[in-house]
Amino acid sequence: MGKIVNIGSRKAGVAPGTLIHIGKKHLTEPEITIIDYDADHFQEIIAENIEETYPFRDSRNVSWINLCGVHQVEMVEKIGMHFGIHPLVLEDIVHTDQRPKVEFFDPYIYIVLKMLTYDKDKEELTSEQVSILLGDNFVISFQEVLGDTFDPVRDRLRLSKGRIRKQGPDYLAYALLDSIIDNYFVMLEKIGEDIEALDDELLEDPTPKTVEHIHRLKKEIIFLRRYIWPLREVVSTMQREESPFIKESTAIFLKDVYDHIIQVMDTIESYRDVLSTMLDLYLSTTSNKMNEIMKVLTIIATIFIPLTFIAGIYGMNFEHMPELGWQWGYPAVWVIMSAVAIGMLAYFKKLKWL
Amino acid sequence: MGKIVNIGSRKAGVAPGTLIHIGKKHLTEPEITIIDYDADHFQEIIAENIEETYPFRDSRNVSWINLCGVHQVEMVEKIGMHFGIHPLVLEDIVHTDQRPKVEFFDPYIYIVLKMLTYDKDKEELTSEQVSILLGDNFVISFQEVLGDTFDPVRDRLRLSKGRIRKQGPDYLAYALLDSIIDNYFVMLEKIGEDIEALDDELLEDPTPKTVEHIHRLKKEIIFLRRYIWPLREVVSTMQREESPFIKESTAIFLKDVYDHIIQVMDTIESYRDVLSTMLDLYLSTTSNKMNEIMKVLTIIATIFIPLTFIAGIYGMNFEHMPELGWQWGYPAVWVIMSAVAIGMLAYFKKLKWL
Amino acid sequence: MGKIVNIGSRKAGVAPGTLIHIGKKHLTEPEITIIDYDADHFQEIIAENIEETYPFRDSRNVSWINLCGVHQVEMVEKIGMHFGIHPLVLEDIVHTDQRPKVEFFDPYIYIVLKMLTYDKDKEELTSEQVSILLGDNFVISFQEVLGDTFDPVRDRLRLSKGRIRKQGPDYLAYALLDSIIDNYFVMLEKIGEDIEALDDELLEDPTPKTVEHIHRLKKEIIFLRRYIWPLREVVSTMQREESPFIKESTAIFLKDVYDHIIQVMDTIESYRDVLSTMLDLYLSTTSNKMNEIMKVLTIIATIFIPLTFIAGIYGMNFEHMPELGWQWGYPAVWVIMSAVAIGMLAYFKKLKWL
Amino acid sequence: MGKIVNIGSRKAGVAPGTLIHIGKKHLTEPEITIIDYDADHFQEIIAENIEETYPFRDSRNVSWINLCGVHQVEMVEKIGMHFGIHPLVLEDIVHTDQRPKVEFFDPYIYIVLKMLTYDKDKEELTSEQVSILLGDNFVISFQEVLGDTFDPVRDRLRLSKGRIRKQGPDYLAYALLDSIIDNYFVMLEKIGEDIEALDDELLEDPTPKTVEHIHRLKKEIIFLRRYIWPLREVVSTMQREESPFIKESTAIFLKDVYDHIIQVMDTIESYRDVLSTMLDLYLSTTSNKMNEIMKVLTIIATIFIPLTFIAGIYGMNFEHMPELGWQWGYPAVWVIMSAVAIGMLAYFKKLKWL
Amino acid sequence: MGKIVNIGSRKAGVAPGTLIHIGKKHLTEPEITIIDYDADHFQEIIAENIEETYPFRDSRNVSWINLCGVHQVEMVEKIGMHFGIHPLVLEDIVHTDQRPKVEFFDPYIYIVLKMLTYDKDKEELTSEQVSILLGDNFVISFQEVLGDTFDPVRDRLRLSKGRIRKQGPDYLAYALLDSIIDNYFVMLEKIGEDIEALDDELLEDPTPKTVEHIHRLKKEIIFLRRYIWPLREVVSTMQREESPFIKESTAIFLKDVYDHIIQVMDTIESYRDVLSTMLDLYLSTTSNKMNEIMKVLTIIATIFIPLTFIAGIYGMNFEHMPELGWQWGYPAVWVIMSAVAIGMLAYFKKLKWL
Repeated sequence: MGKIVNIGSRKAGVAPGTLIHIGKKHLTEPEITIIDYDADHFQEIIAENIEETYPFRDSRNVSWINLCGVHQVEMVEKIGMHFGIHPLVLEDIVHTDQRPKVEFFDPYIYIVLKMLTYDKDKEELTSEQVSILLGDNFVISFQEVLGDTFDPVRDRLRLSKGRIRKQGPDYLAYALLDSIIDNYFVMLEKIGEDIEALDDELLEDPTPKTVEHIHRLKKEIIFLRRYIWPLREVVSTMQREESPFIKESTAIFLKDVYDHIIQVMDTIESYRDVLSTMLDLYLSTTSNKMNEIMKVLTIIATIFIPLTFIAGIYGMNFEHMPELGWQWGYPAVWVIMSAVAIGMLAYFKKLKWL
Repeated sequence: MGKIVNIGSRKAGVAPGTLIHIGKKHLTEPEITIIDYDADHFQEIIAENIEETYPFRDSRNVSWINLCGVHQVEMVEKIGMHFGIHPLVLEDIVHTDQRPKVEFFDPYIYIVLKMLTYDKDKEELTSEQVSILLGDNFVISFQEVLGDTFDPVRDRLRLSKGRIRKQGPDYLAYALLDSIIDNYFVMLEKIGEDIEALDDELLEDPTPKTVEHIHRLKKEIIFLRRYIWPLREVVSTMQREESPFIKESTAIFLKDVYDHIIQVMDTIESYRDVLSTMLDLYLSTTSNKMNEIMKVLTIIATIFIPLTFIAGIYGMNFEHMPELGWQWGYPAVWVIMSAVAIGMLAYFKKLKWL
Repeated sequence: MGKIVNIGSRKAGVAPGTLIHIGKKHLTEPEITIIDYDADHFQEIIAENIEETYPFRDSRNVSWINLCGVHQVEMVEKIGMHFGIHPLVLEDIVHTDQRPKVEFFDPYIYIVLKMLTYDKDKEELTSEQVSILLGDNFVISFQEVLGDTFDPVRDRLRLSKGRIRKQGPDYLAYALLDSIIDNYFVMLEKIGEDIEALDDELLEDPTPKTVEHIHRLKKEIIFLRRYIWPLREVVSTMQREESPFIKESTAIFLKDVYDHIIQVMDTIESYRDVLSTMLDLYLSTTSNKMNEIMKVLTIIATIFIPLTFIAGIYGMNFEHMPELGWQWGYPAVWVIMSAVAIGMLAYFKKLKWL
Repeated sequence: MGKIVNIGSRKAGVAPGTLIHIGKKHLTEPEITIIDYDADHFQEIIAENIEETYPFRDSRNVSWINLCGVHQVEMVEKIGMHFGIHPLVLEDIVHTDQRPKVEFFDPYIYIVLKMLTYDKDKEELTSEQVSILLGDNFVISFQEVLGDTFDPVRDRLRLSKGRIRKQGPDYLAYALLDSIIDNYFVMLEKIGEDIEALDDELLEDPTPKTVEHIHRLKKEIIFLRRYIWPLREVVSTMQREESPFIKESTAIFLKDVYDHIIQVMDTIESYRDVLSTMLDLYLSTTSNKMNEIMKVLTIIATIFIPLTFIAGIYGMNFEHMPELGWQWGYPAVWVIMSAVAIGMLAYFKKLKWL
Repeated sequence: MGKIVNIGSRKAGVAPGTLIHIGKKHLTEPEITIIDYDADHFQEIIAENIEETYPFRDSRNVSWINLCGVHQVEMVEKIGMHFGIHPLVLEDIVHTDQRPKVEFFDPYIYIVLKMLTYDKDKEELTSEQVSILLGDNFVISFQEVLGDTFDPVRDRLRLSKGRIRKQGPDYLAYALLDSIIDNYFVMLEKIGEDIEALDDELLEDPTPKTVEHIHRLKKEIIFLRRYIWPLREVVSTMQREESPFIKESTAIFLKDVYDHIIQVMDTIESYRDVLSTMLDLYLSTTSNKMNEIMKVLTIIATIFIPLTFIAGIYGMNFEHMPELGWQWGYPAVWVIMSAVAIGMLAYFKKLKWL
């Protein structure tokens, strides 16, 4: 994540429905893959241009069109026009700063959410916007960059594993959602490992770096919440809303996804609480250390300052200082000094500083 | 913003419905512009007096009357009487300290909200109250000062861009709302940039100025929330309420505005959390620094105070101090001093201060 | 306010409906004023005893009976019996520690709330309980002491300004509510001015007095919330509940009052947040100052303590100290001392303390 | 209160409905009093054994059986069986760690809540569980120990004061509830006095004892909330639920009790906020004091440390120190020292430390 | 608990309904016990393989099959297939990181929750997932390891204590739930004892260990909440939902369980508040101690530093220092020094440092 501002520069003053790509301009070439299947049949195409996807609008099988690279605005526009997508939806697809939401239109459902990945090397979260259009015989998914999150779904389709080939596009859309949310767990687990490592560090040998790291994680948790919290409503709306595109047999799987989101949110909240607790502990620890430092300084200073004063007295050069001439003057001073030092130590003992 | 108090001096004890301007008295001349249009027709008038607006009440086209300068109470009163506006509404228009709200009256809808602009030079937010009256063939908007926020809407009308010329006054009101809320994003982006700059400053070289700046932003966020939070309800009421003035085709655009407001609120909440996190980090950093300072002082003081004491001892002028006459007395003292210093250093090593 | 406890001594163990005055015993004489009016007619009486109010129960005009001095329990009891008020209501009227509420009885509505005034000299809020009984042709208001809050309403009645004389007792009750709530704005504005003054003080020259003042305001805000928060429900209940005593034409004015209360609450919440932010800033500032103080001490001490030690070395009186006899001993010591001092300064420079 | 744990040792693994007393084993003898009354008739019996209560099940008057000492499990069981009480209810009566609740059974209503008393000497809250069974002609109340909270109700019954003798058992149950909740006000008032005393102490002369006291009160507030919060629902359920045992004439009195509970909760919340504010003030005060202490130390140390260094220089015993032989050497040193001291003071003046 | 991360490694990218055990791999052998009973009949079998449980699907009595060791995935799969359990449910049973929930399927109800035990030696909470399947004549419970929590239920079945043998499987499921939740109280009591011990420690002799312990408890409370909070909804759903598997006679017992969960949650919230209060107290205490330490240092240093300076003055070796030759020079210095010391002490007295 790293970045605090992630609302992107808005296109204030532009007519609604105008397609302008907002977000990181990725350099990768756009990639379009088409998978067309039913229980018995499976076809996978890597399309070279957007027009190749057109025939699949009227395919009798389930068609999944995956388009990587939404910065190619004209491509999104073309496919949108062909499949009859509302201009405001197309606008949202190319604006990669959407809040997760679901919207029901007449011939399709529009779902937008965030795919999150954790780059362990950079210790950074990266987020990517994924849009899913679910029609009665197609699913169109839009990604910012090519990733491997959907690979397991592709594999299940290819190998006809599980029930996926026997179900409709709603089940496919569910499978895509599920694979994105399963990735959240991977990411949370990695954050969790970081937190545990920091917790050990905190108890053993905390440094200013530790507290910076805790703060970084806290900041990331703030943005995670913002991305994931609305998902709860997205999925519950999908379950609740009566739509011809979502069959009852798929609804039970959506319930499962909903449970996972709740669990992700619970975990995030727990992490947030734990991080706060860790910061409190750090402050207490720092405070304790300061106390220890001050005690050492105070003990040394309060013992030796009076002694140095006494030595100073008898370092004076007055002509008439009778003590200086006494036979036992020097040992007597040592006795007095020792008494002062022992008295001080006893006092500190009483104060429980020693 | 800068100002904490912004409720204005109320006119306690005045009969309700009495028009008294409350707010900053702007010096600018009031300006009245009238745009009268339908799909085929477009007319733009800069009116010299308020009476010029009267005929447009009965225009068959859509009429947009924009009045800058609500401190001209009598003008507001005149137009209000002519268009049949309730006295309490007129009172709210000239009171520029309203909470954003929407009210449904029989022949019109009244919407009031805040236009926010961020003055980057002064690093200050300024807010201006905008009132919108939506009737069945007119929109009247009231501004405090002349600004450029509505210019894109005017341009779209002039150039007949997008669907705006083909739609009714409800779409125009939506377009005005949308242009105001799009400006919030511009403003949030600027605040976000400030926050990121502060975050870097905090990690690299925090000064008391940094923390003052964070506090200033926090205070501004408090007031932003207060202005924007009620908008959520305003727009959702507009969608929900069945009013003859808002067509169904416009409702979908209001949904879009609603989503934007939610996103603004989410961003504000995130900013608030991030600023709090930054303040915590600042306190930890300060605490750490104090620890560092104290350590240096303590190390230096606790090493040299005992040594100085030893030197003080042999600076005494007693006649009978056998050590002073010893051949190796002076080197022996150096040995003792070195031992004390090394012991101290070893102790600090053990305490992990070095 | 000043007082933290303001629940008064309850009369534990007394039968419900027993009238016992709870609150500050005000010394002022009770005062009873009667205003009887309709659109054409206006009569104002200062009654000498409570019995003078009796005939107005059956007046065909609107009668407003204002009774100052609820500590005169027997007066409240007499008028209550005559107008058929429930004993529990009478009990609440004389208990001046009620939570704001509205209750609907068969022949009347009972409203109780707090009138708040800010004594700028004492920098103190004072609160007074006001009870309003709204019947089908009368309004009876009970105050603790004589004040000027209702004067504007009286003036409007006398001068027949606005719509008040043409409306029924429900509009009068609204006008009284409105004048009380308008006063809250006056009070909030004064608190707001205090907050702004404190904010300036905080940035320029904070003293322990400043923080005490902030805390005092925070405590007052806590009690304000407690007085004003329930009002929200009071007014919304009055709007919602279908009562023969509140006409529809008055309901729109109650909506206005409701909006004002929400605005008061918003302002109070903002003040609370701002005061918290100010306290945080104060703590950061204090922390920074401490750091500055410690730095100065540490710099001076760590530079001079080693130097003093060196001087102490050559102040020793050993017979055999070869350095003392050297020709360039003294200048050499100066050179060493300067080197130490410069080294220290360079070190502090590196630590960015200088 | 004092105790943090107050859930008591549960009887894990025992069949539900098994009667085991959980709570403090009080040493007092159980006491059973029976009051049987109607408007004309009054009879008061101190029963010697539980069997004496049996005939009152079928009394045509209202019967109030008060049983002190629920640790006598077999007594509770006997009366429970005779009056047909559900085993789970009997279990709750003898478990003195119930959360306040109301339950509607067919022939009776079961109410359980806490009686709170504040022991001013020990500065401690004590809580006692009270169970009330309300049938169609009887009220059975169970207390842990003999107390005087119900005495005013007894007196009103004896003297036939107020409406109590004319009403049914539902009014009696209300009167008992009311007397318990009136006691909460007494307790809150006492806590409020403590808070005010602490607040004064805090401003004048705070000690570590003060902060400990504040923390103790905070802990007590936490437990008070836990006891009182559920009461709100208890009473609102009693009002809402249509039960043949609660007459409409009593419902209005329950509304009064409900208002009192809300007021208690409001007061508790305010106290909590005030206590938090006081702790913040304490921390600021402590921080300020530390600053003052550090300033004094720093001023003294930074002025005298350089001066002592200068004195140390001329205390060195080098043979070749030309200054020592100068005529005006000694006064010159005094001049230098004064200049250093004045410079330092000027610097502190500039830093506003003086 | 100890572990912060407890979401387990998810099986991202696997088809839903695939059974993969997630959680700690326990080494214990799986154990299957079958209890088949009605009011008159009781049979207890320790099954050696999962097939032995098959006949009980069609038993006319109530059958309780308890399976310890869900890491034996194939066993869970076999029994699941035989009893007709949905693959997603089987997946949840072997994933031991479920959020507590209840799900209603056609021929059974699925309940999953956490069993919590507190290991007093390790001062650690351990949690285990328990799944309960309730059909119309059977209850199947799945545990991770063999424990003794269900022993009291077994005993009641064996000895025919209470109503358990006369009731159906819904009552058995309730009894299992109840025994698990009763254990929460045991655990809370132990945590409560820890908190009380820490509270005493805090007031008497707090060490950094104390604060670490408080933080550990706080972290555990965070996770407890996460496990127990959803239970509230589980049980209330079971009460609310009309299911043929839960009889009305059992519903009243579920109400009891619900009350217990609320009480557990209340206690957890109180503990959390108390722990926060304790941390605040610790910080105040630390702050106070620091103040005390600084005072001692400052008093000693500010008294002796000027005195040492004076002594230093007269330790200088200037040839022309008239004071050195004075008869009363030495006593005069003592007088001056005493005056300075007394003045300092008087000043500290004034500052209330002594």
